[in-house]
Amino acid sequence: MITKNKKRFIAVIGASEPSAKETRVAEEVGRELARHGATLICGGLGGVMEAACKGASSEGGVTIGILPGDNCQAANPYVQIPIATGIGYARNMAVVKSAQAVIAIGGSYGTLSEIAHALQAGIPVIGLNTWSLSRDNQPDNSIILAQDPTDAVNKALNLISH
Amino acid sequence: MITKNKKRFIAVIGASEPSAKETRVAEEVGRELARHGATLICGGLGGVMEAACKGASSEGGVTIGILPGDNCQAANPYVQIPIATGIGYARNMAVVKSAQAVIAIGGSYGTLSEIAHALQAGIPVIGLNTWSLSRDNQPDNSIILAQDPTDAVNKALNLISH
Amino acid sequence: MITKNKKRFIAVIGASEPSAKETRVAEEVGRELARHGATLICGGLGGVMEAACKGASSEGGVTIGILPGDNCQAANPYVQIPIATGIGYARNMAVVKSAQAVIAIGGSYGTLSEIAHALQAGIPVIGLNTWSLSRDNQPDNSIILAQDPTDAVNKALNLISH
Amino acid sequence: MITKNKKRFIAVIGASEPSAKETRVAEEVGRELARHGATLICGGLGGVMEAACKGASSEGGVTIGILPGDNCQAANPYVQIPIATGIGYARNMAVVKSAQAVIAIGGSYGTLSEIAHALQAGIPVIGLNTWSLSRDNQPDNSIILAQDPTDAVNKALNLISH
Repeated sequence: MITKNKKRFIAVIGASEPSAKETRVAEEVGRELARHGATLICGGLGGVMEAACKGASSEGGVTIGILPGDNCQAANPYVQIPIATGIGYARNMAVVKSAQAVIAIGGSYGTLSEIAHALQAGIPVIGLNTWSLSRDNQPDNSIILAQDPTDAVNKALNLISH
Repeated sequence: MITKNKKRFIAVIGASEPSAKETRVAEEVGRELARHGATLICGGLGGVMEAACKGASSEGGVTIGILPGDNCQAANPYVQIPIATGIGYARNMAVVKSAQAVIAIGGSYGTLSEIAHALQAGIPVIGLNTWSLSRDNQPDNSIILAQDPTDAVNKALNLISH
Repeated sequence: MITKNKKRFIAVIGASEPSAKETRVAEEVGRELARHGATLICGGLGGVMEAACKGASSEGGVTIGILPGDNCQAANPYVQIPIATGIGYARNMAVVKSAQAVIAIGGSYGTLSEIAHALQAGIPVIGLNTWSLSRDNQPDNSIILAQDPTDAVNKALNLISH
Repeated sequence: MITKNKKRFIAVIGASEPSAKETRVAEEVGRELARHGATLICGGLGGVMEAACKGASSEGGVTIGILPGDNCQAANPYVQIPIATGIGYARNMAVVKSAQAVIAIGGSYGTLSEIAHALQAGIPVIGLNTWSLSRDNQPDNSIILAQDPTDAVNKALNLISH
């Protein structure tokens, strides 16, 4: 079963202190990913990361948490596979590079660094009420906008099915 | 099922170009871990890493490969959960810190760095024909010696059952 | 002499393949930093990094290059102090965290990741024709705009003099 | 002046809680390096690192501290050029890879990880009462033994003069 899902790893990124709405959105994104049999990757801590893991777990999905610290005990309770990198915020890069697509929900500067690392590596980013970018006064439309959790998950999975 | 195994992650480390004997030992260590329902963590590449993953997979075990590069495609074919850290040999630290015990099979200086990072973090290391250490001419017996794969896996699992 | 400058480290970030204008701007930023006795930190490679180091060197300034790879030989010829991190793009974080202020010149997604890591760590970012940000459709004005190299260096040094 | 020394970077590694003898040895190694115009690289914190920086500073040498944390303030007072990597113990790799030779003084498992990363990268290691290694019961004589600080510095500088 895991083997079957091997090729579908989706990262969910966002704030560790999200709004109530962002929390609901993240949980629904987690549920949708699990319903499609995709494995969820995240930074392993609280907020959006925990809500997404909670949603995925409730539908029997697999959840991976790539932690900044030295200790797997710091993972939220819905992380099934904790990875303790010990490299601090540099783990943000590992979160997105281990995924084939990234779904960003709101988020602050940590999330922005993950978006940047993903776009730099050519990994598609789907955004739900998150950052928008322009460079030298020209809009950069690399972040694919989604309307809601279902739309975000569909777009992520469609992008990696080719 | 994965949830049940959540607390038993064992790293297997060793050379990417092992001897034929080390390859056989690694494969048997992988099988034994899987038979006990433990999840295997490794550096995700070839040699001892691949042999251990092959052994674990043959018994239905779960395998995690924490890769040095930017791309999950570099994982050996028996890695079910590839993590692309993009941090080069610094990923050695993540391999051992994500485990509760480490089994070292032979190995060169990369393996020695993993043994050192594990001991530094207080994670027990079980050795099969691997490095031995002395400091300022005093033997350091921190590496727990094992006779064979079964002994190594038993020692690793006993150490983390408390 | 170095001791005196100990507290003034400014990072210059930007594209490895900049426009001709960005190259001129970067070189002038480097010169200005050196004229004020500030130490220049950068990612150590080509483009904006090299131009800034060239400018700083021409005025007798000190230049530090924090490299992604394993080998100091990869540094541009104007780097006096090369640091080989071996951690790939995760070194972007080290570039900004080692500085007290960051000057961003143009740049692509790698530069954006550096801006994000700096803002996340509370390190001020001065921008010259670089990224602008908005979050959930609200402008984020954290990047301090500068008109030209002199203005950028003045703003950076004023920010850290308090 | 710095330009002239560009090609001579020597790392000094050892315990953060050394013996009184190790502290004296480290300080003398720092002095000797400075007398030869070599730049000292270390992990930037206390113990052997601080003693070596103190010795080098007392002879007008240049000192670089590659720190594990996010903040240059953590550097010992004799570090002239602090680098804040934010990657924890993974910075051990950057300490040795930025040097052309490594002098190890005593040390615990963190030092052992640095020795291993250096040997893995082909960077020579000179040892003063530090670890000794054997692999599969065969001595590994890769660590070059030195009798005293002068001998260690001479051996390090001779190794990189070719």
